[in-house]
Amino acid sequence: MALGTLEDDATAAVPGIDKADGRPAPTAGGRTALDRLVEPHSVAIVGASANPDKRGYQIIKALKKAGYAHAIYPVNPRGGSILDVPVVTSIAELPDQVDVAVIVRPAEEVADILIECGQRGVAGAVVLAHGFRERGDQGAEAERQLQAALVESGVRIIGPNTSGMLNCTVLADLIGLPELPPAGPVSVLTQSGNMILSVVEDNRSINGPGFDLIAGLGNQSDAGYAELIGTLSARDATRAIAIYSEGFPDGRGFLDAADRVARTCPIVMLRGGRSAEGQKAALSHTGSIAGADAVATSVLRQKGVTLVDRSDELLPVAALLATAKLPDVGKGVVVLADGGGHATLAVDALSRAGLPLSDLSDATQARLRAVLGLGASVGNPIDVASAADAYADVFADCIEILAEDPSVGLVLVNGLFGAYHIRFDDSFLPAEDKAAERLVAVQKAINVPLVFHSCYADRKPDNHDTLRRGDIQVFPSIDVAVAGASALYKRAQWLAQTFGDAPERAGGTNRVQVPGGLLPESVARRVLQGLGVSTGTWSAATDAASVRAAIADIGTACAVKVDSSKVVHKSDVGGVHLGVTVETAADVANQISESMAGQTPPVIDFGYLVAPMVKSGVELFVGAINDPVFGPVVLFGTGGVLVEAADDVAFRAAPITPAEAMCMIAETRVSKLLDGFRSFEKVDTAELAAFIASVSEAVSRLDGLSELDINPVIASRDAIHPVDVRLVGK
Amino acid sequence: MALGTLEDDATAAVPGIDKADGRPAPTAGGRTALDRLVEPHSVAIVGASANPDKRGYQIIKALKKAGYAHAIYPVNPRGGSILDVPVVTSIAELPDQVDVAVIVRPAEEVADILIECGQRGVAGAVVLAHGFRERGDQGAEAERQLQAALVESGVRIIGPNTSGMLNCTVLADLIGLPELPPAGPVSVLTQSGNMILSVVEDNRSINGPGFDLIAGLGNQSDAGYAELIGTLSARDATRAIAIYSEGFPDGRGFLDAADRVARTCPIVMLRGGRSAEGQKAALSHTGSIAGADAVATSVLRQKGVTLVDRSDELLPVAALLATAKLPDVGKGVVVLADGGGHATLAVDALSRAGLPLSDLSDATQARLRAVLGLGASVGNPIDVASAADAYADVFADCIEILAEDPSVGLVLVNGLFGAYHIRFDDSFLPAEDKAAERLVAVQKAINVPLVFHSCYADRKPDNHDTLRRGDIQVFPSIDVAVAGASALYKRAQWLAQTFGDAPERAGGTNRVQVPGGLLPESVARRVLQGLGVSTGTWSAATDAASVRAAIADIGTACAVKVDSSKVVHKSDVGGVHLGVTVETAADVANQISESMAGQTPPVIDFGYLVAPMVKSGVELFVGAINDPVFGPVVLFGTGGVLVEAADDVAFRAAPITPAEAMCMIAETRVSKLLDGFRSFEKVDTAELAAFIASVSEAVSRLDGLSELDINPVIASRDAIHPVDVRLVGK
Repeated sequence: MALGTLEDDATAAVPGIDKADGRPAPTAGGRTALDRLVEPHSVAIVGASANPDKRGYQIIKALKKAGYAHAIYPVNPRGGSILDVPVVTSIAELPDQVDVAVIVRPAEEVADILIECGQRGVAGAVVLAHGFRERGDQGAEAERQLQAALVESGVRIIGPNTSGMLNCTVLADLIGLPELPPAGPVSVLTQSGNMILSVVEDNRSINGPGFDLIAGLGNQSDAGYAELIGTLSARDATRAIAIYSEGFPDGRGFLDAADRVARTCPIVMLRGGRSAEGQKAALSHTGSIAGADAVATSVLRQKGVTLVDRSDELLPVAALLATAKLPDVGKGVVVLADGGGHATLAVDALSRAGLPLSDLSDATQARLRAVLGLGASVGNPIDVASAADAYADVFADCIEILAEDPSVGLVLVNGLFGAYHIRFDDSFLPAEDKAAERLVAVQKAINVPLVFHSCYADRKPDNHDTLRRGDIQVFPSIDVAVAGASALYKRAQWLAQTFGDAPERAGGTNRVQVPGGLLPESVARRVLQGLGVSTGTWSAATDAASVRAAIADIGTACAVKVDSSKVVHKSDVGGVHLGVTVETAADVANQISESMAGQTPPVIDFGYLVAPMVKSGVELFVGAINDPVFGPVVLFGTGGVLVEAADDVAFRAAPITPAEAMCMIAETRVSKLLDGFRSFEKVDTAELAAFIASVSEAVSRLDGLSELDINPVIASRDAIHPVDVRLVGK
Repeated sequence: MALGTLEDDATAAVPGIDKADGRPAPTAGGRTALDRLVEPHSVAIVGASANPDKRGYQIIKALKKAGYAHAIYPVNPRGGSILDVPVVTSIAELPDQVDVAVIVRPAEEVADILIECGQRGVAGAVVLAHGFRERGDQGAEAERQLQAALVESGVRIIGPNTSGMLNCTVLADLIGLPELPPAGPVSVLTQSGNMILSVVEDNRSINGPGFDLIAGLGNQSDAGYAELIGTLSARDATRAIAIYSEGFPDGRGFLDAADRVARTCPIVMLRGGRSAEGQKAALSHTGSIAGADAVATSVLRQKGVTLVDRSDELLPVAALLATAKLPDVGKGVVVLADGGGHATLAVDALSRAGLPLSDLSDATQARLRAVLGLGASVGNPIDVASAADAYADVFADCIEILAEDPSVGLVLVNGLFGAYHIRFDDSFLPAEDKAAERLVAVQKAINVPLVFHSCYADRKPDNHDTLRRGDIQVFPSIDVAVAGASALYKRAQWLAQTFGDAPERAGGTNRVQVPGGLLPESVARRVLQGLGVSTGTWSAATDAASVRAAIADIGTACAVKVDSSKVVHKSDVGGVHLGVTVETAADVANQISESMAGQTPPVIDFGYLVAPMVKSGVELFVGAINDPVFGPVVLFGTGGVLVEAADDVAFRAAPITPAEAMCMIAETRVSKLLDGFRSFEKVDTAELAAFIASVSEAVSRLDGLSELDINPVIASRDAIHPVDVRLVGK
């Protein structure tokens, strides 16, 4: 979708401006430049136009239509007035300290305009033009000038290549929607203009709570996700941030920001470009690359981001997180329904989402029975059956009882609530409307969040809006209601986690540069040891005699392996011998030497790595990658030769604490084997977690890491043995 | 939800009726009794009432309101008229051959009423009363009488314990909805009354194509899913059947019926009670048990049933399958979008659903470029970008081009279609409306199905309804549109499968009764061999001498195992020795004998099983269970001691052909190892598939099977070795 054409006719050109040194945009009223950018109290339109087909006209029209109460300054050298707003003939003539300039001029003019804006103290700009880095070589010069102008002017920008932004709280429509969506607690950041339309329509479909800021970020040449979530979370008007992202210019920076912001403000994210095909599609769109899907999913969750997999759940889940109380972790969900099928489906969906069901006490069940009569199910799900036909108030009665049961964390009401007057006849309406009002009062009084499904929600009965005004969301889909309940639980659990502080990541001291390419295993082990990772008993040897000496020293049968940066698969080239004793040592060393000589080309530069034989146990994988988006990421899962086929691996942004490593272990299938499954010994998972944490700390101190595989790590009752270590530098 | 109260006041009682011998309800106009039941051309209401709170009044009111054009016969001994319809004072006074009696009387009267209906030639009845088998012991007597009355009367019934049925084609509302949903191609069978309301509302939300029959099946004491899908699929008015099921009284019967019906009529199913908690909830509702979820998912798909996991996808997917053409299998999906974000999300969702993307030819791309101009992406996804702003017709232009590309199986249009007049201004409207009309003509002319997403679909613009009238569905959710596209592909693939005919399953000949409990392995192997399963080289031996002789005969080192119905875990009790030679045979046999004597209580009744040692290979699991719902089901997956932890198993209702077993193998993770992964030899999967098929055939001939585990089956380049066989009878 193209949102109108830019002002690229020469007659509307902004006159040349003098270059000046950049200076930081001053704050106004204690607000930072970004604060002013996202909530403009004055707007200049640079490239204003009297032509209704132009964005420079549409934005003025949209601002007036939306009822924007602050100053509007159209800028056009031709002067006059547009839509009765007097036109300023140049940027230089703008009053001091305008909050936002919307720049509706083509790419090649943007840099100069920014510099002139900076000179007038303009805090921020929305840059619509495309033709920058997303055009590759063609846009390179424009991008270079833009970057220089950002530094020189100090003006903060959203864009370029954006469809604009919208602040519903101050009625600032810089996009030009035909009708402004309602003001409310959800802010939206997106890389796609069409996703702005989708969230606005999705909010309309569920009569959702509305929006504070909605911004298309475009190329994120300046303000990006990481910085803006901080700015938004500090706004009273924003209670949740919904993000559509096709990638991060600085993934690690986003993780750090999310980890802080999510403590106080929910972040809900839908990612595009998760599949290889989708990534290609996204590339053609914005020029940034999404990280590998599984890694991104893990590390974003780790830092408190609520992820949704479906585009139709982004807005509903954000609406719920923005308005609902949080459940107590450790307490379960009660389904309060007026029909068996809906209740069954809700319970199934809750179970699929991994949410616990409340186990209601006998006392609670007896109290429910007194309200509902003999015909109703008072277990969980509760089916109010015929009682609800009699009076809609039964839901509030039940909820008051449930809120006093210590097993209840959240109540999911599902079925026909509020619509008996539609299903049966109008005589139900007054009681239903009154019941909704009472439910709002009940929700205020209790700490248990209420989430409603009604199969009649699309009919939008007034009593549903009564609930919504009382911060109780009502959804037409059981699945969406459960997705919302699940998001509330997962957020509550994340907030309750106490992993302790991981060691500082990016400290300038104690960092190690990894040489390029594969390292000899002995070097890899020394690097890890130097950074605090226990690599067990082993020796490096240089010849048959020192191999023999090493085995003698270790005092038990050993594995002897070739130790070289030239050998990738040691076993495949006769480079591994097991059960080697003092007696067979020389012979084995010679065999390895001969094997190396027999390679094409011969491997000359090698030594031997000697380590005691390890008794059998569970074969695990511990490793790390340097993710192009998110930086060092530690891996744990099923190990051994079948590591790829097993497809059983958990990821965390490094470093992590042992407590966090315990959670990581629990995510994998192989964790079942660590608990003494069948013939396996029970493994000391605390020791394993400490090992994973030490690896995560080590890799976060490596510069030039490409990847680290410790595979297998053999875990048995008494030890964690890293059997083979492979470290590769960039 | 209770749908009004039944007529249980004594004054309205139906007078006693004489018992008579049952006789099958005659057909009328070539229609069977079930044909007449689902499309009644005359309706009697037994228990009609003049009280507006009673179902016996509401149904008459609903029939009149809906515009039911056939005869209505209220039955009540008090006579008179209800809503201007003359009341018949007894069933005996009904005219001959009434199609359907709605029985609005309590449980204890139903049996007598059915018998009297049978005497008057009534074809079918809808029985609303509850209090039968779903009440357990309390309802046992009523259930017994009901079953006897069904036999005696020959009347076919829906229910009892149902909220009724609705035939929109003949405007017969036997439920009493305030407004009849539109007549259309989707029929619905459900065990939940509330799910009737949900599908009706969901159809309303998407302006869906409407309904033929909607029936709540209740207890399915007579007509159930299996029979009704046959009846419905024979109706011209029904083009797809949507089912909400919480279990099957006769799962195998349903599979057989589905396998036939799905050839011509799509069946879409949402299951309730899939989780343990949901099963409990479902139990309290209808009294039937869902099969284990994974088994049910596999065998229903095997027989052509389209499964949906979300309640909000049942109706949309059924609407699409009822109206859309099917894609050619082997051709891919094209995403035709007017914005990058939507296109990326669609591609991601398609990828997640496992659907292929079309690889458009250079010629196609050049033709698209000619239409769309330089600014558009003409790969896949196609982004029409600014072109669409210019003229909405661009979509039809592109689709005509795409339909001629042999790589295109389906076109998913996504973005803002039909709503530029909402997003921008009304001036777009005439062109958009015309574009929709042209698209309908294009869809008629081409064999490539079109599926539309528009983020403005909830606004219900007229041009979307134009598309729908042309059998093109438009969805507000990208995810739902992709779920629909996926269902079309999977159905096309199922129809295209050629597995050949599996051997007859339930033949009375060549069946084997499995004794109860664990069988000695030698017996298990003989049973399987007798049914055509190759169990390899092995011998049963009775003492040390015959063990020695067996090994000598086999001519290589052997495994010697205890062979007894008393030993469950042979290894745990010293019952397995490996690498036994002629020399060590006697010693090993004695050791096993001593181990057995040392058990508590001592194992006396045992022999020896001797089999050659098997070289290493991939450890597989082949087995079978006798599913309580679906009967014999064959299993294949990862084997070995970790079989449970691996959680890698595929299921099929037995018997299957080798071709179908190949599909089963491909579903598992372990299949990656069969293709020569790393150090593993490539396995002859055709031979493996033949083995699985032979097991499936064997287990389908067993009576009294509880379970069969052949684990491990060791597969290497040259052979499939069943190493351990465990057969358990009920």
